[in-house]
Amino acid sequence: MKQETLTPFPPVQFLLLEQILRKGAGYHSESKAKEYKHVCKRACCGSAQSGALAVEAVAAALVELEDSPFTNAGMGSNLNLSGEIECDASIMDGKTLHYGAVGALSGVKNPVLVANRLLIEAQKGKLSWGEEHMTGWPPVKFSLSAYKRNKRKMELAEKLDTGHKQTKKRRQPSEHENGPGCLDTVGAVVVDLEGNVAAAVSSGGLAMKHPGRVGQAAHYGCGCWAENACNMNPYSTAVSTSGCGEHLIRTMLARECSAAMQSEDAHHALLEAMQNKFISSPFLASEDRALGGVIVLRCCRCAEAPPSQNIQGILVEFLWSHTTESMCVGYMSAQDSKAKTHISRLPPGTVPGQCLAIEGGVCRLMSVAE
Amino acid sequence: MKQETLTPFPPVQFLLLEQILRKGAGYHSESKAKEYKHVCKRACCGSAQSGALAVEAVAAALVELEDSPFTNAGMGSNLNLSGEIECDASIMDGKTLHYGAVGALSGVKNPVLVANRLLIEAQKGKLSWGEEHMTGWPPVKFSLSAYKRNKRKMELAEKLDTGHKQTKKRRQPSEHENGPGCLDTVGAVVVDLEGNVAAAVSSGGLAMKHPGRVGQAAHYGCGCWAENACNMNPYSTAVSTSGCGEHLIRTMLARECSAAMQSEDAHHALLEAMQNKFISSPFLASEDRALGGVIVLRCCRCAEAPPSQNIQGILVEFLWSHTTESMCVGYMSAQDSKAKTHISRLPPGTVPGQCLAIEGGVCRLMSVAE
Repeated sequence: MKQETLTPFPPVQFLLLEQILRKGAGYHSESKAKEYKHVCKRACCGSAQSGALAVEAVAAALVELEDSPFTNAGMGSNLNLSGEIECDASIMDGKTLHYGAVGALSGVKNPVLVANRLLIEAQKGKLSWGEEHMTGWPPVKFSLSAYKRNKRKMELAEKLDTGHKQTKKRRQPSEHENGPGCLDTVGAVVVDLEGNVAAAVSSGGLAMKHPGRVGQAAHYGCGCWAENACNMNPYSTAVSTSGCGEHLIRTMLARECSAAMQSEDAHHALLEAMQNKFISSPFLASEDRALGGVIVLRCCRCAEAPPSQNIQGILVEFLWSHTTESMCVGYMSAQDSKAKTHISRLPPGTVPGQCLAIEGGVCRLMSVAE
Repeated sequence: MKQETLTPFPPVQFLLLEQILRKGAGYHSESKAKEYKHVCKRACCGSAQSGALAVEAVAAALVELEDSPFTNAGMGSNLNLSGEIECDASIMDGKTLHYGAVGALSGVKNPVLVANRLLIEAQKGKLSWGEEHMTGWPPVKFSLSAYKRNKRKMELAEKLDTGHKQTKKRRQPSEHENGPGCLDTVGAVVVDLEGNVAAAVSSGGLAMKHPGRVGQAAHYGCGCWAENACNMNPYSTAVSTSGCGEHLIRTMLARECSAAMQSEDAHHALLEAMQNKFISSPFLASEDRALGGVIVLRCCRCAEAPPSQNIQGILVEFLWSHTTESMCVGYMSAQDSKAKTHISRLPPGTVPGQCLAIEGGVCRLMSVAE
């Protein structure tokens, strides 16, 4: 755990993002890691420049991640059984508690921007009246590398499918059908200079999924969650999840982790939540393993007296935890000129889906009081 | 609160269902009430004959409700802006904690049966592999009365829309666009002779809704919830909700009520949940009222010694609460030869969406021990 002291007036106080989850050893190779780290850094820097509000910054970070061909989101998305891209994305504003989501959305370059538009319209009370939400968005374009990656996945899936038919054994949904990296999702959590939190998540869905299937990234309480501190809750919390959609939905993992973070020891609270509400969840009793990861921000006003009346201190704790073999995170605070990235791995010899890794840090930020 | 003692060996121990919510005074007229009561009774009796398992009984009850032209579900559903029927439905099995849901589903007579099939397939671990879930279901047929009712709604909506365009004021989604009875949903909660609980909900959606809009009936944790008692929870609980979809989704009302019912006093717990987690919910801070209703079953083994070793006593508490002007419920226990129905209304002079009604009863059931 490291301690940092920051200069005041930054546009974004703290940003934490996840990029890639790999369920099995070997997939998250060191050569690929460099590319993933690069995307994480660009997303951190892009969102830091985006604007003052947490919800805007988190959307900007997701756009950077979606625009990368190396992530399973936006232009790099997996193809479904019909050979088409269908994306899920959602975003939540901790200040207003409003939420926007899109599921199985086709043909849009940045699904998170559509989710964000829905959030903004929900705040205006316009949603049910049937706006033409889906017009005017830039269409998705494939990069050559994303096309090749998807082609390889299609071929792999066909090979698996042939084997499947020959053996006449039904394959389990969370097993092999998605090829390498089936659990990719991108997500981010942010706190801004007023102490508002926001969270977002975006996913290209399972490779070879049934058209119309909607994963955790479009499910309320499952893909992302953000709540500012209030009378009942001393801490502001923001969570984004990644992993096997069915596992994350049935456990409502984002909301459960957010609720758990109201107890005093953040690290212990997250450890307990991942153990009791995910790995040992009664909702996953029929599964032999629970595959997922979370990034978590929580913050509160500092207890110590600030240096002047105009300056407020915010204590930010940032954590990540996963039951998958590895998870790539990037983070950046307002004082940093560049983002840090890190690939977290399960301890050697532990079993993915039954054990977890947990890491994080804490920093003290200064901002101007309202 | 009334006390009942029942004969052993019934196929369904207790069934509670809701049928219609009306947000404003006058809509739930006494003449219509007779028809609604009739549907409730048929659903109670139909499901009592269906089979031994709670999840089968709750599906059977929903089929009866969907097949009525007087409910906004199945064949009686509202039409969307394109003049089509799109239905939401979900079902949850408290024993396995598995869940099935369909959203914006077109052209199927009984959406709850598709949700139930998905639940069964989820239990087999088949879901993500892309079965042809949607084939082979009986198509929906309009009854003449449902057609006429929808035609009236279309005309009413057109009239409102013209007025809307003339005044150039945007209408709020929860206000007038749906005509009378916009909050109709049908739902049921059941406990079977082994003490398993199940819950289900089905809705034809908002009249004149934007195609593809999915309401609370298809959202996990929002439309229905069922959890058998376990190590952590002394009570089995089942909940089904009805009302304004946005309000029920943002508050995750079904799951919240279920969680609340683990405290000792069921009546007080539901009252507090409806007040603090719904009417005064921070997630509805931007709304001037919260419109919804819930039906709740909770049960546990009786504390007293049973008459013989083979007989177990189950204590069943059944409750309903709503913030809408009125709510129609039907219920039947294993001893009853016919169902009881009741229309609950807010106390005179209270404001819908800001006040609530709560009622219920308790009965003691006997069943054969496993």
